[in-house]
Amino acid sequence: MGLTAKNPFEDSEELKGEEAQPGASGAGVEVIGLDHVAVAVADLGAALEHYRTVFGLTVETREVVAEEGVEVAVLRLGDVALHLVSPVDDDADLAAFLEEWGPGMHHLGLRVADAGDALNTLDREGYELVDEVTHPGVAGTRVAFVNPHEIDGTIIQIVEAT
Amino acid sequence: MGLTAKNPFEDSEELKGEEAQPGASGAGVEVIGLDHVAVAVADLGAALEHYRTVFGLTVETREVVAEEGVEVAVLRLGDVALHLVSPVDDDADLAAFLEEWGPGMHHLGLRVADAGDALNTLDREGYELVDEVTHPGVAGTRVAFVNPHEIDGTIIQIVEAT
Repeated sequence: MGLTAKNPFEDSEELKGEEAQPGASGAGVEVIGLDHVAVAVADLGAALEHYRTVFGLTVETREVVAEEGVEVAVLRLGDVALHLVSPVDDDADLAAFLEEWGPGMHHLGLRVADAGDALNTLDREGYELVDEVTHPGVAGTRVAFVNPHEIDGTIIQIVEAT
Repeated sequence: MGLTAKNPFEDSEELKGEEAQPGASGAGVEVIGLDHVAVAVADLGAALEHYRTVFGLTVETREVVAEEGVEVAVLRLGDVALHLVSPVDDDADLAAFLEEWGPGMHHLGLRVADAGDALNTLDREGYELVDEVTHPGVAGTRVAFVNPHEIDGTIIQIVEAT
């Protein structure tokens, strides 16, 4: 965790002061499992072709997630999905990420029973959120991002399957 | 894919010329599933404490992978493992990664039936490898890295469970 960590969320708050020590009470979020791993790519078609020819992975679904300004192609890896994510909107946080960091791994999607409850727990425990409320993700999920500063530079998406 | 992609492997070859078009024949590697996702962290103890208090994840095993100069803590997320990886050697590729990019997501571990066969296939198809031969990973696996330039900036580790 630190200020050098990846943080494409320009509108997020500054780190809170020491009086707000995240997770001090130890009451956390119950994670059911890994929903998906997301990779940021500039050219979704080229990336899909790559994963198909190299690793035999084919696309399960392809959707625009309007709230994030991205298009997501879902590849299946057993119980877990691999999301190839590309911006469809110049103002998307992902466009800023690609500009700063280039293509590569973007976030972990952790599955929880109730994304709203999980956000409330994290907020109550002093963790800085990116999304104050959940929004629709791919395949009918409800999702929200947690600020990567809080979790050792890794962008986490809370995912509730519906 | 491109020269801006993350590439902590300083000793890897330059990209091959156009005459070697990777994957042109379409003969790829059969991926069984996602073995693990790896996150690079500077302080393994602090990161473990974070994942424990925030998400209730506890460590399954903790091992040094000598060939990579790293210590790996394995957290369980259903069928998939989350690897928190930290350098134990200043010369480790991961130390260079942390210095350049900061902490955050590092690589995808894709499970295959035979890591040696997979490397041979990728090599034959013109993909640039980081590791010419496999080496021991955590929990008795055999692993090898593929150059991230080849797969849209994402570092891929081929993993054979034994």
